[in-house]
Amino acid sequence: MMRSSRFSDTVNVFTLLMVICFIVLFSSSVLVEGKIRRFKWEVKYELKSPDCFEKLVITINGQFPGPTIKAQQGDTIIVELKNSFMTENVAVHWHGIRQIGTPWFDGVEGVTQCPILPGEIFTYQFVVDRPGTYMYHSHYGMQRESGLIGMIRVSPPSTEPEPFTYDYDRSLLLTDWYHKGMSEKATGLASIPFKWVGEPQSLMIQGRGRFNCTNNLTTPQRSEAEVCNASNTYRLRIGSLTSLSALSFQIEGHNLTVVEADGHYVEPFTVRNLFIYSGETYSVLLKADQNPSRNYWITTSIVSRQEKTSPATAVLNYHNNHPRQRPQTLASSNFRPKWNDTRHRLAQSLAIKAQKGYVQAPPENFDKVIVLLNTQNKVNGYMRWSVNNHNLTDAFDWRFTPPESYDSRNYDVFAVPSNANATMSDGIYRLKFNSTVDVILQNANTMSVNNSETHPWHLHGHDFWVLGYGEGKFNEWEDPKRYNLVDPIMKNTVAVQPYGWTALRFRADNPGVWAFHCHIESHFFMGMRIVFESGIDRVANLPSSIMGCGQTKR
Amino acid sequence: MMRSSRFSDTVNVFTLLMVICFIVLFSSSVLVEGKIRRFKWEVKYELKSPDCFEKLVITINGQFPGPTIKAQQGDTIIVELKNSFMTENVAVHWHGIRQIGTPWFDGVEGVTQCPILPGEIFTYQFVVDRPGTYMYHSHYGMQRESGLIGMIRVSPPSTEPEPFTYDYDRSLLLTDWYHKGMSEKATGLASIPFKWVGEPQSLMIQGRGRFNCTNNLTTPQRSEAEVCNASNTYRLRIGSLTSLSALSFQIEGHNLTVVEADGHYVEPFTVRNLFIYSGETYSVLLKADQNPSRNYWITTSIVSRQEKTSPATAVLNYHNNHPRQRPQTLASSNFRPKWNDTRHRLAQSLAIKAQKGYVQAPPENFDKVIVLLNTQNKVNGYMRWSVNNHNLTDAFDWRFTPPESYDSRNYDVFAVPSNANATMSDGIYRLKFNSTVDVILQNANTMSVNNSETHPWHLHGHDFWVLGYGEGKFNEWEDPKRYNLVDPIMKNTVAVQPYGWTALRFRADNPGVWAFHCHIESHFFMGMRIVFESGIDRVANLPSSIMGCGQTKR
Repeated sequence: MMRSSRFSDTVNVFTLLMVICFIVLFSSSVLVEGKIRRFKWEVKYELKSPDCFEKLVITINGQFPGPTIKAQQGDTIIVELKNSFMTENVAVHWHGIRQIGTPWFDGVEGVTQCPILPGEIFTYQFVVDRPGTYMYHSHYGMQRESGLIGMIRVSPPSTEPEPFTYDYDRSLLLTDWYHKGMSEKATGLASIPFKWVGEPQSLMIQGRGRFNCTNNLTTPQRSEAEVCNASNTYRLRIGSLTSLSALSFQIEGHNLTVVEADGHYVEPFTVRNLFIYSGETYSVLLKADQNPSRNYWITTSIVSRQEKTSPATAVLNYHNNHPRQRPQTLASSNFRPKWNDTRHRLAQSLAIKAQKGYVQAPPENFDKVIVLLNTQNKVNGYMRWSVNNHNLTDAFDWRFTPPESYDSRNYDVFAVPSNANATMSDGIYRLKFNSTVDVILQNANTMSVNNSETHPWHLHGHDFWVLGYGEGKFNEWEDPKRYNLVDPIMKNTVAVQPYGWTALRFRADNPGVWAFHCHIESHFFMGMRIVFESGIDRVANLPSSIMGCGQTKR
Repeated sequence: MMRSSRFSDTVNVFTLLMVICFIVLFSSSVLVEGKIRRFKWEVKYELKSPDCFEKLVITINGQFPGPTIKAQQGDTIIVELKNSFMTENVAVHWHGIRQIGTPWFDGVEGVTQCPILPGEIFTYQFVVDRPGTYMYHSHYGMQRESGLIGMIRVSPPSTEPEPFTYDYDRSLLLTDWYHKGMSEKATGLASIPFKWVGEPQSLMIQGRGRFNCTNNLTTPQRSEAEVCNASNTYRLRIGSLTSLSALSFQIEGHNLTVVEADGHYVEPFTVRNLFIYSGETYSVLLKADQNPSRNYWITTSIVSRQEKTSPATAVLNYHNNHPRQRPQTLASSNFRPKWNDTRHRLAQSLAIKAQKGYVQAPPENFDKVIVLLNTQNKVNGYMRWSVNNHNLTDAFDWRFTPPESYDSRNYDVFAVPSNANATMSDGIYRLKFNSTVDVILQNANTMSVNNSETHPWHLHGHDFWVLGYGEGKFNEWEDPKRYNLVDPIMKNTVAVQPYGWTALRFRADNPGVWAFHCHIESHFFMGMRIVFESGIDRVANLPSSIMGCGQTKR
């Protein structure tokens, strides 16, 4: 069932520096009934101390994280983005927004647009065509971790109620935080000898952390407190834009009911803690049903790596208690899963299914399977992360199709690779328009003995069905028999666990050029990314604003 | 004699974002007999420890400072510059090269070209039309201080001997060095409250300093030693690209004979120490005429500000002594002038005259005088440095002429200004082609009581005659009577001393758009700059490579 046949259409024979040149013709079919919501944003660096350590932070109109975009399904979002950096360019990706009809506004520098230069204003315009919880962030260099992040909250039309109710709606964006600048970190990653970024100095909840704060953990600051009224139900929209860490989120003494994942309704299930990977969003319902005479700790902690960073803390403040009233417990005693307890993380992933009544069944058959081996490699002595031992460059050549599989028969995913050298690749995956594509993410051992890492993969322009997860090497004959083809959740980001595999399916029904990559910023930077193209002949009217660099400058 | 009449030619009525759009027609008249010298440079960040503290340093082909360009008068220099930064643009200025016929390759981002984007290759091509000592450096944001610096050494044709002889020819580029990144410093300068960059952590001679080195000052490293042979004469080409500091350079027990300044031969005179300001170059002759059985300290120290930074040290190593042989003295005991001894600095400036036989007499008359009051100001609460209380923006409008003088009658240059608010200006100074222009740099008190700073001003595209210096307020009737019109030196950079004035004259004979600014990087960044235009109707064939941003992108 696993095939590695190459895409058979004839491809043109000229080389183009940037895939954006491929976008030629497309007739828009988006909803046009919504409101137009216009934003004027100025991005710049400011010296801020979000965890009591002063460093350069990217702000939007002075805010970090950036303002939450609130809209209704069908609305058109217009963001006039002014780059007020001194020497750095910028580009912003609207994470989870499929950009149907506007692939050029996906915000991926080098794939869908030229960077926005200092002093320039670039206008993004796109439709939010589905309700749900999404995010935005820089998609250029490693700027995301410098703070250009925020959330997008799309409500359904008032005539279409959601399948759950709540009294209040809150956003909590989770991040990890480094005190060195992204240029210094990126330079270390691209150096011989390799210099790893290390563990983050802080974790943050909605842009607040505690690294070096004079008041101790047991004295929450007012702005860290989430006020709630006893007996009410809260929808917490939780997103993660960590640059490295997978997280666990928990609230002392309270269960969380998962109801949404990446913009899709989830058949509700209850957890004591929520595991969340970079690039994911969840909505959980929190019932304020505990003793209202005290406050409770909200914490988030690292689960994907051995813990060297203190949890981020906030306080669930029951109304009538003073927001600075410290919970009677220590934040550090809050429930926290073991960092290497992969089984519980996998169990949560398996529990996430589409909500009854909202199931969009996947196509039963597929047209192509692409198996992507995730490996740590060296290229010319530089440390990289690669896909099928190929490492994507910044320039693309559509004549070349990268490998659609690896030598699975002879590859031991549990061992350090005997030859970890990868080759640079400028090829992109060209998919037949409207074809159904299965992607198997296959994890493996890194270049260190007994080590395999978690990789959250994010697909641009599409959601995919999550068909299954497994441990060890994917078996192309047996494993597909256990795929969930009945009620799989659709997502735009999914993790592959250490030494495991994850199977997903999507329909290549959105004309454009789309990135698919590990959402760990350093892994992406080190080459753990591919590009899909489909239906470019349906794309038209490239805005001139995305041009002006590389081949498009001449 | 001081006039403030506005340039009377009719100006067009449309606003252009960038002056580069003005360059329309020019017929080249440069020498074409020289060799073509082609360089391929890659600029990127690397983690280096030039003063034993690791930080991001900009390198060219892995080198910091960048490679010295060696050429002969009339040669054509072609530099293919590849930007290998991750998210930052770049532009390189060829400091002291007048760019006759190639004003678009002057390398001033926002004035003569769009920035070079990451991944792009930009080709500079220009003729070095005069022998002498020049430099190059980034002219974008505050990148210069991150290390994009180097020297240019142009020899005369072999048929034209220089008016002095020497056995060896050495380059010594002097800098000051900060451990914080330029983005953080620039952000502090552009913040409310204002956050000053402070004093440098190190001084450096040819890219080597001592901040945190384990071996102490008395044990020079081999690469810090300048080998010399007893009785030989050395030409030391000394350039300063400090971001802030004015320097004194001295060699223990040796006199220095000044023979060149900014590419012009100087009537030789001897000094015990050389004062040098950012943007200046000098050649001095060093006769190795001391006791050859020992080594001697070479030091450079700050003179413009109260000393908080240790001198940079190197060793003059007489042949046959071991290069690591420590001089019998302490480096700290090396001669060093007092930081606030302005009189000795002024005396050196006054001693610099054109070498007999090489005098290019200035025009006796001038067509226009522009008086430029140098002041520290506030604009909308932000700390700035301004010119005639105008503060240049990044976008220009040639309909507007900035003030050509200030209210000298009512302005007390010795007092804190009663109203230090400046206004933003988008005007440029338009000069009649081939007219003779006098510029008076008038210094004044800063916003602090009893404080006035040294400002080295650098003119692009031209050399100017230095006609005179004075203390206090320039007297438009009396002071010009004492101008040196006989043998003034020509330079491209000149300092105005605290509470003093400096008068210079130049002929606006180079068609183009040219920056004139304080060479202290933070002052330039904070607005201490103006732009001259002349003869743009003679400029033709704008290369497309300089376009692609701002208005030129549309």
